[in-house]
Amino acid sequence: MTQPLIQRLCIIGVGLIGGSLARALREAGEVGEVIGCGRGEDNLRAAVRLGVIDRYETDPACAVCAADVVVVAVPLGAMAAVLRSIVPHLAAGAILTDVGSAKGSVVADIERIYGQIPPHFVPGHPIAGTEQSGVEASFATLFQRRRVILTPLAETAAAAHQLIRRMWELTGAEVVDMGVRHHDAVLAATSHLPHMLAYTLVDTLARLDDRAEVFRYAAGGFRDFTRIASSDPVMWHDICVANREQLLEMIALFSADLAQLAEAIRSDDRAAILATFQRAKRARDNLYLD
Amino acid sequence: MTQPLIQRLCIIGVGLIGGSLARALREAGEVGEVIGCGRGEDNLRAAVRLGVIDRYETDPACAVCAADVVVVAVPLGAMAAVLRSIVPHLAAGAILTDVGSAKGSVVADIERIYGQIPPHFVPGHPIAGTEQSGVEASFATLFQRRRVILTPLAETAAAAHQLIRRMWELTGAEVVDMGVRHHDAVLAATSHLPHMLAYTLVDTLARLDDRAEVFRYAAGGFRDFTRIASSDPVMWHDICVANREQLLEMIALFSADLAQLAEAIRSDDRAAILATFQRAKRARDNLYLD
Repeated sequence: MTQPLIQRLCIIGVGLIGGSLARALREAGEVGEVIGCGRGEDNLRAAVRLGVIDRYETDPACAVCAADVVVVAVPLGAMAAVLRSIVPHLAAGAILTDVGSAKGSVVADIERIYGQIPPHFVPGHPIAGTEQSGVEASFATLFQRRRVILTPLAETAAAAHQLIRRMWELTGAEVVDMGVRHHDAVLAATSHLPHMLAYTLVDTLARLDDRAEVFRYAAGGFRDFTRIASSDPVMWHDICVANREQLLEMIALFSADLAQLAEAIRSDDRAAILATFQRAKRARDNLYLD
Repeated sequence: MTQPLIQRLCIIGVGLIGGSLARALREAGEVGEVIGCGRGEDNLRAAVRLGVIDRYETDPACAVCAADVVVVAVPLGAMAAVLRSIVPHLAAGAILTDVGSAKGSVVADIERIYGQIPPHFVPGHPIAGTEQSGVEASFATLFQRRRVILTPLAETAAAAHQLIRRMWELTGAEVVDMGVRHHDAVLAATSHLPHMLAYTLVDTLARLDDRAEVFRYAAGGFRDFTRIASSDPVMWHDICVANREQLLEMIALFSADLAQLAEAIRSDDRAAILATFQRAKRARDNLYLD
């Protein structure tokens, strides 16, 4: 019998992402034991009951001490504290990775803790998820045909990088490497900004005097458009804080373009209005064929 | 055999909305003859071939002359010219209605043409549609469980209002009455503003230097969020022009709220960020359970 890729996997934060990763690796038969850890013991018990993890530890130090791969899948706001609590207890040769939606802040956390970038740390970000959260929402195929971005650093060991790449490939994901800053810029544009717009739109409408009436007539397009406003507020608060600079830059770009469109509408510059919509439709249609 | 509700129906603009209305009324057995009219003869021939209309006229005057109900389902930008061309040729007792997404501009067009609001005109707006257009995209169930808003005026004859209400009810829609200005405000909030945001977002991203890279990492949420940016640019240009005042008001409200969120992110006002997202999620979740 061949050895699995990972003998002992520790998942800190057994939610949608951490739980789905464990499920996928189990289905692939590429993990020996899976140990869970996290703040909520109810969630951890559910994870054992669902067969997502074999057992759990409530103390992060105990959870990581014999693991060969540790995946930190907690909200970005908890990242620094969790890393601080596990780093002193990692086994020799253990590889550490995370799934944070912003990478600059996690790399900075790690650098503060170690005083440098350690070779066994591989920053990662699976671009997958739903508006759901918690281990109950996890499923083995979440990452299939999704992209996982790794942002290895100059200091990152090739073997550590390769193992984490292989781990994600086993889930059915397409793994790509990217620079830390570039990752954060791309995600600010395609994910963080759209979430800000959806949250703000729903909140703007929810504070209108006739909000009940307004929402009654919100039709199909509105439902799709605002789906991401159902995402976890704490998680998105953390992302805003972690990716502040790049997100603010994208909000500024967008706001300037919206102001320009408003000015075109105000001044009845019909050619400019039409040109904007045509460019956008062309870009959207080329992006997806639905 | 009982009489159908409408003996002779004339649809000016046999596209997604006009075509779907004709199909639904035919399936209900509540229409005698359906005459189509519109700019594109290819589209009209397709409408005959698909059984959506019985025959077509290319001259609007001929199309309407013997109809008891005339539905104008052309883009808002063509509305004034079409109304002007048909009004002199309407049969005595004919009822005129439209499907425009903004009602103030259509009512103003009608008032300009007649010099007053005629009793046989019933402004209407079915809140239904897809990103598709044209008669090929039409289907009989488009309006089922959708809302149709009628904005009858003080001058509107009760019988005309009742007939148009009944016509839409036969398509499976829920028909509600609303004031003209109120309709335009509600639609600016729930439909026109979201379209502006989706178009602007895609256009902002499409003009980034690394747009190819950016779009490559646009994940599931982005797809839903930007679906409405695939809508017909000409139709949406027309809506911007027709509902300018109320749309600009909503863009201003939204922009102020987005600026406030950006300021909270910049100044690290975490409580304000979280409160915004939580309010939005609560409103969205109460609106739809998906």
